[in-house]
Amino acid sequence: MNTKKHKVLAISGGVGGAKLALGLYKLLPPQQLTIVTNTADDFEHLGLSISPDLDTLMYTLAGRNNQAQGWGLAGESWQTMAMLKDYGAEDWFQLGDKDIATHLVRSQLLRQGKSLAEVTTHLCRKLGIETTVLPMTDDPVRTRIQTADGELAFQHYFVREQCRPAVTGYRFDGIDSAKAHPDILQQLADEALSAIIICPSNPFVSVSPFLQLEGVRDALKASRAPVIAVSPIVAGMAIKGPAAKMMQELNMPNSAQAVAQFYGDLLDGFVIDESDADQADAIRALGTAVDVAPTVMRSLEDRIGLAEIVLQFSNLLES
Amino acid sequence: MNTKKHKVLAISGGVGGAKLALGLYKLLPPQQLTIVTNTADDFEHLGLSISPDLDTLMYTLAGRNNQAQGWGLAGESWQTMAMLKDYGAEDWFQLGDKDIATHLVRSQLLRQGKSLAEVTTHLCRKLGIETTVLPMTDDPVRTRIQTADGELAFQHYFVREQCRPAVTGYRFDGIDSAKAHPDILQQLADEALSAIIICPSNPFVSVSPFLQLEGVRDALKASRAPVIAVSPIVAGMAIKGPAAKMMQELNMPNSAQAVAQFYGDLLDGFVIDESDADQADAIRALGTAVDVAPTVMRSLEDRIGLAEIVLQFSNLLES
Repeated sequence: MNTKKHKVLAISGGVGGAKLALGLYKLLPPQQLTIVTNTADDFEHLGLSISPDLDTLMYTLAGRNNQAQGWGLAGESWQTMAMLKDYGAEDWFQLGDKDIATHLVRSQLLRQGKSLAEVTTHLCRKLGIETTVLPMTDDPVRTRIQTADGELAFQHYFVREQCRPAVTGYRFDGIDSAKAHPDILQQLADEALSAIIICPSNPFVSVSPFLQLEGVRDALKASRAPVIAVSPIVAGMAIKGPAAKMMQELNMPNSAQAVAQFYGDLLDGFVIDESDADQADAIRALGTAVDVAPTVMRSLEDRIGLAEIVLQFSNLLES
Repeated sequence: MNTKKHKVLAISGGVGGAKLALGLYKLLPPQQLTIVTNTADDFEHLGLSISPDLDTLMYTLAGRNNQAQGWGLAGESWQTMAMLKDYGAEDWFQLGDKDIATHLVRSQLLRQGKSLAEVTTHLCRKLGIETTVLPMTDDPVRTRIQTADGELAFQHYFVREQCRPAVTGYRFDGIDSAKAHPDILQQLADEALSAIIICPSNPFVSVSPFLQLEGVRDALKASRAPVIAVSPIVAGMAIKGPAAKMMQELNMPNSAQAVAQFYGDLLDGFVIDESDADQADAIRALGTAVDVAPTVMRSLEDRIGLAEIVLQFSNLLES
């Protein structure tokens, strides 16, 4: 296909979003792609600054992700973790021996005064990633999950409690004072930008933090590039993570259509899975163009194939 | 042998000293032994607070030291290190995957405001060590090695430069304001104390920092217990580390006798190796009792055997 000399901005959370981001990464030369990553899942643990979504994206783009496990690094080992257990340290967050190197380098550079974006660029370059990967902000934003049993830090909800508590709401601590990374706003205002792609990540806790940063929603709407989201909900289920469960708990239908409604007038196009084709008309009635495609990405070919479909869809919407 | 109900205070640096400390640990019940450890080798690296001599002692007492390698933990692996190299991080100090757990826990507890002594007690208890292990001070003291090429932080000299630069002097940054841990001074004043044992560690950089802490030298002299050192120099060589090389560079004979002279009137007794028996009279002429014994500790039996010899020697000197 002809991807033209346009620029693409992709917005991704963790594992699910990174699959499509990898497809785009394989299709587009580095100077044509910028990937914005959620940082509201970030947390400090055992003195380490951990950015799970940035790490997942980096490891995926570098081809070093653990495909069998579905997260973390290939060839990972767990010796530090075993010793941490001997010391009675918190062991609910699995820190692989290799993964710890990422956190050590990041933590040290942050303490030396580097911004999260600078640190991310450094780590990416060392892993051989030339494409620009940007944290949504350099400022601390922390997702808090509200449950019947009280509020939980995101990783406590997601990893420690394995998403078991019923979600009654969520908020993003620090969101009001955080600034979107200036390069993101610059990209959004760029005349050469031809597609803004919201990857199939959790709309509430992976994409929403970015959308709530001051100026982002307006910049997305003002951009000449179409905004296209890929539904993370397929046949009522999330391929990965608690999105569908959260929708039920938040009294929404767990459907692709409800995701489109959540994004609202931000969307120019929405890509849904073939299994949800019967929702296409209802979603179009919301004022959004719809593309029906095979969206479940099992292989690298699936990832690249879906990226091609999304870029072609954006070409249609752009013209 | 009868070790009586007396108390023993041992002073140790790293690998060499820890061998005799292990012998004492195997002989004496926990409430009868306190081991004071050098902290002037401590340093901050990749954001971690590393205490090499404390770690060596802990791992040795816990039976988890790597005997084949001579330092670090048994069953160690190096995955974090390999990944740190991928990131272009400093890799001259070998951090094992298990070892990193120690540094992570220590660094976090120190940041939370715990003292180094409190952290050490916590780590020791978790490794099953009931004997009291005390850092010489909770305050930062850092050995600086003076060489023809300028001054080096200790670990830069010891590990990064592998002791190659010729030593012209050394100093202990922070020594003037650091306070010996109060429990050490209390032990030294204890009427039940019956032996103060300076383990065969480097006199200049492992033992001297402790001796230079305010009040320590006076407290050692004032104690009713005899002060006994075991020579780290055997037949003109250091079993481990740069002691002999440093002595030559500092224009001292690299002999057991020169070690005795360095400790001076602090010593009540000095244990030298059988291979240095010909120096016994000259050392006695310095005013120090001398015991000649097999001091090279290859096996656990050697360690326990030398500990017995030193305790028996102290019994003689005490009465």
